[in-house]
This record gives sequence, C-alpha cells and structure tokens, in this order.
Amino acid sequence: MVARKRVIGIDAGGTKLLGGVVDDELVVHHRVHRLWRGADRAEVLEVMVEAVEEARAAAPDAAAVGFGIPSLVDWERGVSVMSVHLPLDDVSFRDLMRERLDLPVYVDNDANCAVLAEQRHGAAVGASHVAMLTLGTGIGGGLVLDGRVYRGSSGAGAELGHMVVDLDGPECQDDCPGRGCLEALASGPVVAREAVEAARREPRSALGRALASGREITGPLVTELAHDGDEAARGVLELIGRRLGAGITGIVNALNPEVVVVGGGVVAAGDLLLDPARGVVAERALRPSRDQVRIVPARFGDEAGMLGAALLALSEGTA
Amino acid sequence: MVARKRVIGIDAGGTKLLGGVVDDELVVHHRVHRLWRGADRAEVLEVMVEAVEEARAAAPDAAAVGFGIPSLVDWERGVSVMSVHLPLDDVSFRDLMRERLDLPVYVDNDANCAVLAEQRHGAAVGASHVAMLTLGTGIGGGLVLDGRVYRGSSGAGAELGHMVVDLDGPECQDDCPGRGCLEALASGPVVAREAVEAARREPRSALGRALASGREITGPLVTELAHDGDEAARGVLELIGRRLGAGITGIVNALNPEVVVVGGGVVAAGDLLLDPARGVVAERALRPSRDQVRIVPARFGDEAGMLGAALLALSEGTA
Repeated sequence: MVARKRVIGIDAGGTKLLGGVVDDELVVHHRVHRLWRGADRAEVLEVMVEAVEEARAAAPDAAAVGFGIPSLVDWERGVSVMSVHLPLDDVSFRDLMRERLDLPVYVDNDANCAVLAEQRHGAAVGASHVAMLTLGTGIGGGLVLDGRVYRGSSGAGAELGHMVVDLDGPECQDDCPGRGCLEALASGPVVAREAVEAARREPRSALGRALASGREITGPLVTELAHDGDEAARGVLELIGRRLGAGITGIVNALNPEVVVVGGGVVAAGDLLLDPARGVVAERALRPSRDQVRIVPARFGDEAGMLGAALLALSEGTA
Repeated sequence: MVARKRVIGIDAGGTKLLGGVVDDELVVHHRVHRLWRGADRAEVLEVMVEAVEEARAAAPDAAAVGFGIPSLVDWERGVSVMSVHLPLDDVSFRDLMRERLDLPVYVDNDANCAVLAEQRHGAAVGASHVAMLTLGTGIGGGLVLDGRVYRGSSGAGAELGHMVVDLDGPECQDDCPGRGCLEALASGPVVAREAVEAARREPRSALGRALASGREITGPLVTELAHDGDEAARGVLELIGRRLGAGITGIVNALNPEVVVVGGGVVAAGDLLLDPARGVVAERALRPSRDQVRIVPARFGDEAGMLGAALLALSEGTA
C-alpha cells in the first residue's frame, strides 16, 4: 500500500468550525468540530489553531493546512481583508497561521472552497465552468471559470446571491444594501415567510393546519410537508424554485456554465425546488447555453467547504 | 524608424462590415466599409474576402487577419457555430478564410473583440477584470476576467444584456425567450418607448412638443433634448440609467470587476445616463466592490470591434 498524502482542511464558518484530515483521494480520516468562544480575534484564531493541533495529533504526517474563512480574502497575500461574520478584518492570516503551526498554510474564502470541492470531486466533476449557489440563511455564491476558482479583482467575487433579479423588489438582508437580490427572494428565511402566507391563504392545507396548531413554520417543515404531498407547501417551493430559476437564467446567459450546483439547507427540497428552476431556465435562457447547462444538487453538503480547503492544501494553492 | 507590425482587423457586424489596417500601436492606417449584399453564406463570405483584399492592397505587409463576427464562436477550432445575424451557422470560418486569404486568421465573437480593445487600449486600460455593456438596438456584453477574454464553456458567454433584472418584467426582444432581461429594460428601443410615454405625460416639455409636431421619437433625439436641458428627456435617461445601474449592481456583486465599460449608441447621453447608473451601484452594491469599480463610457465607439479583431491578430490569438 502506497502511503497517501494527507492534509488538514478547516472550514471556519460564521457560526462554527469543521475540520478534517483528508487524503489525496478526498477520504476524510478524522473530523474536528468547534464552536466559537468569545468574539475577539485572538480567541477565534486560537480556536482555529487548537482545531488544527487536534487534527494533527490524529495525523502527524499532515503536510499542509487549508482554511476556508468567511472573509474577503486577498488570495495572493493570504490576507483576510474583511469579514462580516468573524473578527478577521485586515489579518495577515496565512503568515500568522504559518508561524503558529509551522506548516504550509493556504487560505481562501469559504464559498470558493465549496465550489472547488464540488467542481473537483462533487456534483460538477469534469466541468471547467461551474457556478454554485448555496441557499441557506443567505445565498452564497462561488464560481469556477476556465477550470480555476474565480475570485474577482479584489477577492470579493462571486456574490451570486446578490445578483439583482427584481430591480424594484424587497430590501435585501443584513449587510447588503441592495433591493431585489436573489437572496431577498429565495433564501431560507423567504421560504419560511412565503410559507406563512400560503398557510394563511390555505388554512385547510397541511401547512395551514401546522400554522394553526402553533408550529413554527420553517424551511425544513415546508420541505417535509411538500415531500408528503401537501399542495400548499409544494406551491411555496415552486414559487421559490421559479425565482431561483430567474437568477440561474441570468447566470447561464452571462457566464455559459456547464453546471450550476445548488447547495445549502434549502436544497433538501430536491427536485421540488430544482424542477421549477430548471423549467424557467429551459423556457427563458438563451440557446445554446440553456440546452448545455445542468442544474444539480450539491454532493458534499456541509462538508464542501472543509473538503475544498483541503484541496487547496493538496494542490499547494494552485487551485 | 522601426517598421511596425501591421495586421487587418474586420468587424463583420449584423448590418455592415468595418475593416482596418492596424499597427501594433493600434493606429489605423486604412479603413474599409461594406454593406452586406444578398443573404446567403457564400455572398457574406465573399464580401469579407473582398474587404480583406482591399485592405491588403493598401498594406501588402499585413501579417495576419482578425475577424469579429456576430456568432457563437468555437474559439479553439475557429468555427462559427451559430449566428442570429448572419448566415454563419456551422462554418469552419478560420480554416476557410485561411485558405481563401493565405494568411494567418483569427476569429472571435464581435463583442469579445470590443471588450478586448477597450481593456487593452481603451476605457479600461490597466484593468484585468472588465465587463462591457453595449447599449444599442440590443444590449451586448463582453468580459475580460483575470486578464483574458471570457468566452464561457461553449463560446456563448457573456450575454450580459440577458441577465434577468425584473423576473416578472416585459418579454425580451427578437430571439431571446426571456422576460425582464436588462435588454428588455434599457436598450435603445426602450429609451424611445419610454420617451413617447413621457412625451404624452408631459405635453409641454420639449419632448412632448416634439411628439406633437410629428417628429419621430428616437434615442438620439432624447439625448439631444436632454443635453439641451429638457426635464422630461432627462427623466427618461434617469429611468434608463437607474435600470442600467441595477444590472451593473448584479455584475459588480457577481464578478467584482475593476471597470464596467458602457458603449453603444445610447451612451451618447454620457453622464445623463451614467450618473444615475453610478448612483444605484453606489447605493445598492456590496462593499468593497462598489467602492472599487469604475463605470465609464467606451473609448472606441463603433471601432472597438475592428480594433479588437486586429488585436487578436497582433497577439496571434493569445488574447
């Protein structure tokens, strides 16, 4: 048996950290979980260092570490320029971690890591032009173009969730000053909001009865009821799916990708969400792009970021 | 004096052909114009050959020919896969022209040529991440990403005029099956249509009087009246500019370009159109992209495609 190269991948998300020891066939040998303690920069970095050290104890041969962080990353210099999720503004992340860990360190934005994992080994394997949308509390985006992760001119691309799909639409969320962004129309909280309205309109539906009985109307509940056949819940997913399809239509026309990967919690709805999206793209996008593109669910779920971070380390930052 | 390398650039647009003998400082030494005769493939190709031969008579030293054509181009093979404007579906364009002309031949989509010219020597010189929108009868698009023309997975990108900015909006034009595309909301014909409505609403405005006197309401007239200070005409350009700004907001968020170049006839309106667009981007796009991007008028106007085709030839197809 040939000894495989192993590295450590760390996905430092906005709410928690997931790490793993990963080999060059992308098998995960050991997993590490952490929640953030405190809120200051030193503590956040300390948690990351501890997570790496735990993984390293299980795999002393680990050759390098890759980090996916929820920041705008200056890729060339390995600097975390700004982050709305963690106190990582203006941190020389790569240099600092390299010194602390005495290992080669690679760092990129977490969404870039996720699309890299899906493109290299996941739902978009074999494709050189891939767009990824991650539908959760917000809508994250990632792009692989001409076989490489697309980072934009300053590391801020690809915020595909903030393409404008309704120019007079509702205000977007959190730190986005936009209106009618895809995120404002198709993210998890919008699924829940539209479901409450549908429940009120159709009190006899399973969704309506759930609301009347005092259950909290969440994305997962909508998905569950839709899978059980409730028409009201299915209608909500159809509405969201068609909006998603309008966003994907723009992506297909503007970038002519081979694959659009849809990930995040909302995609648990599967084809109940994706078929309406595919329908809109088939109706409205330009030929030949619309006939060539595949719209598929993500393969790696919550582990895409960690796996992509490991891929950065495995490829020594050439990805 | 050092003899400069010279090539021939041909922009074979949907309605006419513009050619030029261009040196490696992008000085144009001789221009050629043609209108299409007839409609079949052989005639169209013959017009192109004649145009090249005329240019070559003026510059026997021309080392190569670049063509920009209104087609989906398979860049690797030099094949015109399909075109909605000229009878050039499934033509081995590069091989065919190479044989006819006995010169090295390079061929790309005309919008790709235009953005290349603006990025290398025009309004976006020095930038590696450039989006271009050409506002005319339709809205064309081009992208330079990471310093190279972005062609998409099958040569169909970058149709930036068909990003969806109003998912329940009006039907798009011609061969686009979409709704609420940027082209359906901000192209030249829409300027004229909105101007007619404004003229009816405000009969005492210069625009209103022009309509009442039987003048045809066109984009150029709106621009002229707006430059003269007519508030109704300015309002039309403001409306179109803000819609354009919504489209550019999506481009800025999704691709983080350094420069967005706006060309085509409609941009004769200058800052009366671009300032509202810049205003929307400044309000609604994400930081830091919105603070970094410049939104500027094209430099080369009608000659961008021809100059870009020449650049392809000058760079021996590496652009």
